[in-house]
Amino acid sequence: MSKDIQVTIWNEYVHEKEYEEVKEFYPEKFRQKHAASLKEQHQSIQQIYPRGIHHSLAEKLKKGKTISVQTATLHDKEQGLTEEILDSTDVLMWWGHVAHAKVKDKYVERVYERVMEGMGLIPLHSAHASKIFRKLCGTHSQKLKWREDGQKERLWVIAPGHPIVDGIGECIELESTEMYGEHFDIPDPDKIIFISWFEGGEVFRSGCCYYRGAGKIFYFRPGHEEFPIYENDEIIKVLKNAVHWAAPVNGPQIKYGEVEARE
Amino acid sequence: MSKDIQVTIWNEYVHEKEYEEVKEFYPEKFRQKHAASLKEQHQSIQQIYPRGIHHSLAEKLKKGKTISVQTATLHDKEQGLTEEILDSTDVLMWWGHVAHAKVKDKYVERVYERVMEGMGLIPLHSAHASKIFRKLCGTHSQKLKWREDGQKERLWVIAPGHPIVDGIGECIELESTEMYGEHFDIPDPDKIIFISWFEGGEVFRSGCCYYRGAGKIFYFRPGHEEFPIYENDEIIKVLKNAVHWAAPVNGPQIKYGEVEARE
Amino acid sequence: MSKDIQVTIWNEYVHEKEYEEVKEFYPEKFRQKHAASLKEQHQSIQQIYPRGIHHSLAEKLKKGKTISVQTATLHDKEQGLTEEILDSTDVLMWWGHVAHAKVKDKYVERVYERVMEGMGLIPLHSAHASKIFRKLCGTHSQKLKWREDGQKERLWVIAPGHPIVDGIGECIELESTEMYGEHFDIPDPDKIIFISWFEGGEVFRSGCCYYRGAGKIFYFRPGHEEFPIYENDEIIKVLKNAVHWAAPVNGPQIKYGEVEARE
Amino acid sequence: MSKDIQVTIWNEYVHEKEYEEVKEFYPEKFRQKHAASLKEQHQSIQQIYPRGIHHSLAEKLKKGKTISVQTATLHDKEQGLTEEILDSTDVLMWWGHVAHAKVKDKYVERVYERVMEGMGLIPLHSAHASKIFRKLCGTHSQKLKWREDGQKERLWVIAPGHPIVDGIGECIELESTEMYGEHFDIPDPDKIIFISWFEGGEVFRSGCCYYRGAGKIFYFRPGHEEFPIYENDEIIKVLKNAVHWAAPVNGPQIKYGEVEARE
Repeated sequence: MSKDIQVTIWNEYVHEKEYEEVKEFYPEKFRQKHAASLKEQHQSIQQIYPRGIHHSLAEKLKKGKTISVQTATLHDKEQGLTEEILDSTDVLMWWGHVAHAKVKDKYVERVYERVMEGMGLIPLHSAHASKIFRKLCGTHSQKLKWREDGQKERLWVIAPGHPIVDGIGECIELESTEMYGEHFDIPDPDKIIFISWFEGGEVFRSGCCYYRGAGKIFYFRPGHEEFPIYENDEIIKVLKNAVHWAAPVNGPQIKYGEVEARE
Repeated sequence: MSKDIQVTIWNEYVHEKEYEEVKEFYPEKFRQKHAASLKEQHQSIQQIYPRGIHHSLAEKLKKGKTISVQTATLHDKEQGLTEEILDSTDVLMWWGHVAHAKVKDKYVERVYERVMEGMGLIPLHSAHASKIFRKLCGTHSQKLKWREDGQKERLWVIAPGHPIVDGIGECIELESTEMYGEHFDIPDPDKIIFISWFEGGEVFRSGCCYYRGAGKIFYFRPGHEEFPIYENDEIIKVLKNAVHWAAPVNGPQIKYGEVEARE
Repeated sequence: MSKDIQVTIWNEYVHEKEYEEVKEFYPEKFRQKHAASLKEQHQSIQQIYPRGIHHSLAEKLKKGKTISVQTATLHDKEQGLTEEILDSTDVLMWWGHVAHAKVKDKYVERVYERVMEGMGLIPLHSAHASKIFRKLCGTHSQKLKWREDGQKERLWVIAPGHPIVDGIGECIELESTEMYGEHFDIPDPDKIIFISWFEGGEVFRSGCCYYRGAGKIFYFRPGHEEFPIYENDEIIKVLKNAVHWAAPVNGPQIKYGEVEARE
Repeated sequence: MSKDIQVTIWNEYVHEKEYEEVKEFYPEKFRQKHAASLKEQHQSIQQIYPRGIHHSLAEKLKKGKTISVQTATLHDKEQGLTEEILDSTDVLMWWGHVAHAKVKDKYVERVYERVMEGMGLIPLHSAHASKIFRKLCGTHSQKLKWREDGQKERLWVIAPGHPIVDGIGECIELESTEMYGEHFDIPDPDKIIFISWFEGGEVFRSGCCYYRGAGKIFYFRPGHEEFPIYENDEIIKVLKNAVHWAAPVNGPQIKYGEVEARE
């Protein structure tokens, strides 16, 4: 019997906590300008994911028989990225938005080394701008267009034979979400799974597979702290499929460095 | 001084001729159903490209100093695909729509061999369903969604460093065009240059680069027999850039088959 | 409990049968020139795969718990490619060498449609020149360098995180085999898994993944009718992994053709 | 008349200077172990590139009519990477080996930003382990196999239609060189141009094209401080072709960040 895939859902867990705490993460200037909307935003968030996005996702992913889940946050010991946690992680799902800069470089390095060694990574939505994804891209992946207008998104399947779209229809519709638009400054994905259409006139590469080192990465755009994207069954199905795709394999032990001739 | 790139613009040249001739290409059933719109369509076409799309494109491409242009049509000797014409062709631009099936297999083979040997190929718009592009794809590239509703298209640049977008803005807007939507059943392009957004809710990989044999292929979606797409300066600029990108190089002479050991 | 993956191993089954039968497949000129070596070759083959390569492979693949196997040959009803057989095929493994031209176009079309719909395909060794692989490539995939000198090959893993190399070391050594060398006239693979080194001085892209339509294709170079390549445990492990990778998914039902606007 | 492409050849310029200076770059432990060979090595180098690899390359590249060249080294003002120099650089060629760690992070960042904005980059040979290439890869590109045994390398052309192989034969033979072997821990190149065969039994992806941001990168393996690789005319031809391929285009001005809806 094959072992469960062990998923760790990491969340910066800032949006979902009381507004007072959020304040310290937003730059002062931004807070003053957006004070009203921030307040409203963070109050609404409490109603969607009252225990945090990580708990909500964990509940849903656990329903897959072959996945076991733990959660971790920025506020935990070693920012939730201890060696122990990573030792028991096959695939790391990453949510971050306002606190990217708070994640310490030494933990980013630690996660990076794990990806190189084979750990799967699934950066969600605004994690396009996380330190770990930027480092893995080698480009300004934080650069894209955005607009929080709550309009419609439609994700079209581009790769009908790929395991990540198993059980999915030809497109996924999200009635109300934040827009991300091209140009998205990423390396060309090794495989594009979804391209999004947005009501306001933009497109976006929304599901992107990468092989890096011995690790596999699936960037998935949908998700938001205000809009209940993770209540959508197809979105959850994609995440489950992505966990299976990104799980490590028992790949070759490679000897790097100076070697003797084989011949 | 470097020689001009020799472009041949091949056009099935059916739409643009009088409606009577068109009749023989459309299946009887289709004609009966669409008689009124066909009539209207082909009359309007005469006003846009009175001498044929090939002549219109030729006029515009010639303005580039480094490109010389000839045209050919389905109605010419050997369907416009004689060895002589192909001998003097660096890059073949291909327009076809209603008469794909009329192109004889032996001439498709002839064009195919030229692409394998290094000739560039630029299939335009409905040439996604041409015999030559289908053969080069090895998939059902004729399969896509479509709708002739004259709504808006916006082509977003995905590859900002690529020579095909030299001199182009971050997107090209076409006020009124036919829609093509994903899933488009092509092999993943070696490089995607544009992704289109359509007013009706679809997306499309609209500028696709392929390397096949020693040849280079650029599929470019924009273009239509009714809507004056080829009057758009940015579209023409893309085509000129594509001609330069697709031009043959003086690549290696390769010995295939049984060979002696090198060591 | 998940169902077994159903593999059909198709073999032209010519080499392994008595020399008399082989004669009809080789061109006359070729037979006269190579009469002695052909005789010797086909006698030696009988000792390696006395019941045919398909039976030998079937025995080995069946040992994987999650794979069930049937075989078919060119000499069966409808050349072994009946609708019934394809209906019960998730992944088709293809061995062909001297009889490519004998496979009827109508059956090639049938297999092609199945790949477009999601069936996996694993062309082995000389199947690079089979009609079905050439059609799927859209290039002259029959073109490569070759030499039957029985020298050493070493397949280096290029993609350490890919499921096809699960359980494999950093390279696979084959003491004695036929050489295939670049340039190999294929489209760039969507993923290269192995690159081979040959004693005589050549290299080769030996494990190539393609997505085409809803199907997945893994071309795998190793294999020969004289050298006992399929006795190698790592080669068999790669084939088992490839079967799992190439198995169909329950992908989207796609509506192609004219569609209503979504908006 | 089109302007020359402005190439800057940057060299750490350590190997070629007297042995005394080299000492400070090599780790103490390494120096003690390899004292004799280092001494011999650096003496021999003086005979091959007496004024430095950068001057030797500059002489050869200048012979192309459309390329103008300047050089810079680690020992210059701001490590040879001033804003002024980068302002007058279309394509930066990078040689480094023993002094990667000496290049200051702030200058690496400066070069990185230029690549994102469109500057071409050609890392040579041991520059696979340079800070700038590692950052752009997002992987451990320093990891590979190596052996300084002065044996044969043969670079096979994989991409016969690519402009980088214009004027090149089907392979390039280098009689005596250092070996680099797979696995090479890079992201899959956007296009592989050459795969190398080595006498000792290894293979290597030796010519790798990447698009990153608006910039283009061509990693080219050949080159060494001891073996006179840059005396080889075909190697120089490849470098000239690569300069043309990597030159910036007048690409789109992209507006990133929050945007108004287009519709």
